[in-house]
Amino acid sequence: MSVQVPKPDHCIDLGVGQPDPALLPTALFSDLAVGWQDLAYGEHAGDRGFRQHLAHWLSGEYQTPVEPQQLFVTTGSSGGLDMICSRLARPGDVVLVEEPSYFLALMQLVEHGLKPVAVPMDRDGLEPAALEQAIRQHRPAFIYSIPTYHNPTGITQSRARREALVALARQYDCPLVADEVYQCLYFAEPPPPPLACFDPQAPVLSIGSFSKILAPGLRLGWLHGSGEVLGRLLGSALLKSGGGLAPVTSALVNPLIEQGALQSYIAGLRQTFRARRDCLHDSLSAALGGQLELNRPDGGYFLWAHLRDGRDIRAHEPRCRALGVAVKAGPLFSVRGGFRSSLRLCFAWYDEAQLRAGAERLARALDGGY
Amino acid sequence: MSVQVPKPDHCIDLGVGQPDPALLPTALFSDLAVGWQDLAYGEHAGDRGFRQHLAHWLSGEYQTPVEPQQLFVTTGSSGGLDMICSRLARPGDVVLVEEPSYFLALMQLVEHGLKPVAVPMDRDGLEPAALEQAIRQHRPAFIYSIPTYHNPTGITQSRARREALVALARQYDCPLVADEVYQCLYFAEPPPPPLACFDPQAPVLSIGSFSKILAPGLRLGWLHGSGEVLGRLLGSALLKSGGGLAPVTSALVNPLIEQGALQSYIAGLRQTFRARRDCLHDSLSAALGGQLELNRPDGGYFLWAHLRDGRDIRAHEPRCRALGVAVKAGPLFSVRGGFRSSLRLCFAWYDEAQLRAGAERLARALDGGY
Repeated sequence: MSVQVPKPDHCIDLGVGQPDPALLPTALFSDLAVGWQDLAYGEHAGDRGFRQHLAHWLSGEYQTPVEPQQLFVTTGSSGGLDMICSRLARPGDVVLVEEPSYFLALMQLVEHGLKPVAVPMDRDGLEPAALEQAIRQHRPAFIYSIPTYHNPTGITQSRARREALVALARQYDCPLVADEVYQCLYFAEPPPPPLACFDPQAPVLSIGSFSKILAPGLRLGWLHGSGEVLGRLLGSALLKSGGGLAPVTSALVNPLIEQGALQSYIAGLRQTFRARRDCLHDSLSAALGGQLELNRPDGGYFLWAHLRDGRDIRAHEPRCRALGVAVKAGPLFSVRGGFRSSLRLCFAWYDEAQLRAGAERLARALDGGY
Repeated sequence: MSVQVPKPDHCIDLGVGQPDPALLPTALFSDLAVGWQDLAYGEHAGDRGFRQHLAHWLSGEYQTPVEPQQLFVTTGSSGGLDMICSRLARPGDVVLVEEPSYFLALMQLVEHGLKPVAVPMDRDGLEPAALEQAIRQHRPAFIYSIPTYHNPTGITQSRARREALVALARQYDCPLVADEVYQCLYFAEPPPPPLACFDPQAPVLSIGSFSKILAPGLRLGWLHGSGEVLGRLLGSALLKSGGGLAPVTSALVNPLIEQGALQSYIAGLRQTFRARRDCLHDSLSAALGGQLELNRPDGGYFLWAHLRDGRDIRAHEPRCRALGVAVKAGPLFSVRGGFRSSLRLCFAWYDEAQLRAGAERLARALDGGY
């Protein structure tokens, strides 16, 4: 076996938003078997037994009933978004996105010829009045939102805000695609349920994934939604030709859900990531509190920080490189080139010692000025 | 575990082009383990070690060198075609296809807003003169061809024909996408190598898959090509976000290639399918020789048959249903509604006793007239 993607040797890259390889639950995957049913072409929506276990687990997790027929098993969140881009939109269409938003989702939209148009956020997430105005103005193919532990800002939409957004999706019959891959990674209270839980008549698709809570190499995730909009994906020729998207990988994960191993593993991740969030936050505050405004997200993977003096973070990049540290610069997350003084920092990929070392290096790089 | 897609109870469906579940190599998947490297985000092109083993095996299989850097690991042939449709074409573009062609590929093209335009075949496959004329007339986004044990006709392009088609792709800088999922299922002599083996400078992508030679539930395949056209796919934001498409499933298959278990399994399939081809062919010839013109393909999954009296096969469908047999009617494979007297029959899904029973039922259905 070869290392598929190694960590860099001489740089603590706080820009990388991946789970720590050292935390991957290898032991859960050490004694596997799949049956002939899993080796054959599978049900289009995903294996029924797997969807039953997944729905049961999610119902408890969300404190809201989820039915197996509301779930479509995918090849992870980016695979799900890819199908949405090619099946629910056509090149030239507008997609409304948060400003800022997940940079690789923005790239995926552009790659499909779609035009991301920014809608502002407030401390409760996407602003409904601005969203409604943008829907009327642009008639978008869909809205792409990150409701929980937003990437990069860490903001979580309140329950009332979720209700308002879902109501708009229904009123304008505009699909609302919610990227909820951090939903289960809460550090204290669980967040409000995913957008797909609010109104079964609304065209809402919640994107879920095992990448951040189990193992990205599985390329396994799900779409959660109901009615017409899910049906448009399930009727795809891709599924008619290839069958379900993940018979074998879902069979590997099925017993982990059924026996509770997934749930135990996630509980451990919450503890670990909470401690890592505190570690990175406190290290940076201690070293750079005067220069850096920092959030303290209630879950997820990322801190979102701002240089108080308004300088462009990209001007610091050569010095960061020289000192062996990296971050993701704010403009990457903006369709307008905004957030020039902002940076995203991931606390999931490294352990606490490395996070402290990364924070020290970053402090030296930023202190050094231009 | 639940049965993902069962065979129908009361019908021998010779239309289904799937491997026989009874032949799936469950024993090869009974003692699996994957390491942390496989659980992490993977290399965009696919795990390097896996591509090395895959390249080594294919080089022997094709009697032509295949390099790991010419391979991109995908989620099966339909997943590969889906990426090609969304990355190498835009809605409204023409795609040149054989007449007839694989019906679900045609559906996939249409689903992406592409316009399949038919190019005729002769006994050696796609006609170069007609293809050149169509390239000049339509400026297609790409050409979709099935060079070996063509679905549905069973035709295999000669070596000279392959050279001519690849030369046209290069001359007009028009991507040539070759669906080669039956390449390894030869019953006597191996076919000429896949189109991607002929000219590393030509924009050719050969689609390979483990679905027909190991297990479709893996959703594992590859694209084989070189240079710019493969690079356009490898630069995709889908990969930047999700990493390689199949780290875990490729890790499951890797030891099977390395240890030769895949190769032994395929050798067995060739024997089994040759016997099944003979069984279905001979049963139909004996029962319907006067009415049915039949091919005898050198490999693959399908017989292609024609009603000698020119009647429309679809008129027989109610009687087929009543007698418990089904076929795929020719017009499904045509962009023009042609081949009304033709039918595709799969000899891979059923064992010999069932094939004989299916042939008898079909004979009774067709004998009964309208």
